Amino acid sequence: MMTANETALAYWTAAEARDWAGFAALLAENVVYELPQTRERIRGRDAYLRFNIEYPADWHAKVERVVGDGRHAATWTRFTVDAAEQDALSFFEFDADGLISRITDFWPEPYEPPAGREHLVERY
Amino acid sequence: MMTANETALAYWTAAEARDWAGFAALLAENVVYELPQTRERIRGRDAYLRFNIEYPADWHAKVERVVGDGRHAATWTRFTVDAAEQDALSFFEFDADGLISRITDFWPEPYEPPAGREHLVERY
Repeated sequence: MMTANETALAYWTAAEARDWAGFAALLAENVVYELPQTRERIRGRDAYLRFNIEYPADWHAKVERVVGDGRHAATWTRFTVDAAEQDALSFFEFDADGLISRITDFWPEPYEPPAGREHLVERY
Repeated sequence: MMTANETALAYWTAAEARDWAGFAALLAENVVYELPQTRERIRGRDAYLRFNIEYPADWHAKVERVVGDGRHAATWTRFTVDAAEQDALSFFEFDADGLISRITDFWPEPYEPPAGREHLVERY
């Protein structure tokens, strides 16, 4: 059985390769995918596969960080979506068979820094 | 020496308690804090402590998830800032002494779900 860390990496490798059979093989049949920012939820491997296959953009993912620990993992991924850069943060839960049972995704957007902390901060 | 998991939890416990001495004791002197959304960077324990102590809002943090693995950890925290709810995602790096040497924070905001995936998605 793969570790949490290995499975999270395999998930992104399969997604980037559009290897949907390999991607599906990592998912529990009753996987739940949640997007807290939009309060959207997708239930089940079939619907979640379709969501990914149908996604209407040309995207590429590069894993910046993966942290795995027993039945949990987290990844920080840099996406290129059409011409734009976008970070994605994903939290994974695994079932007893090592399959992904829950994914919670966050897609933070750039914003202007609040005033009042320029004395502590540099921009990069 | 605490594990990555334990140190990440202790960081949030100290922050929530405004135990700034305990908080500082977890940080490497040359800690770097980065906010990719605003491209802000804070260098050093003293500046990062001031940033937290001076933060101009009444906030409370509840840890939803912590994942730790060797010299890395990730946390998902639910914040209440004044009356608003806000998720925070934090990626930690640790030095050889187990001190936090780098923190990368993301603060995703709600957004409207894109059209075209209603057949796959429920709202919650």
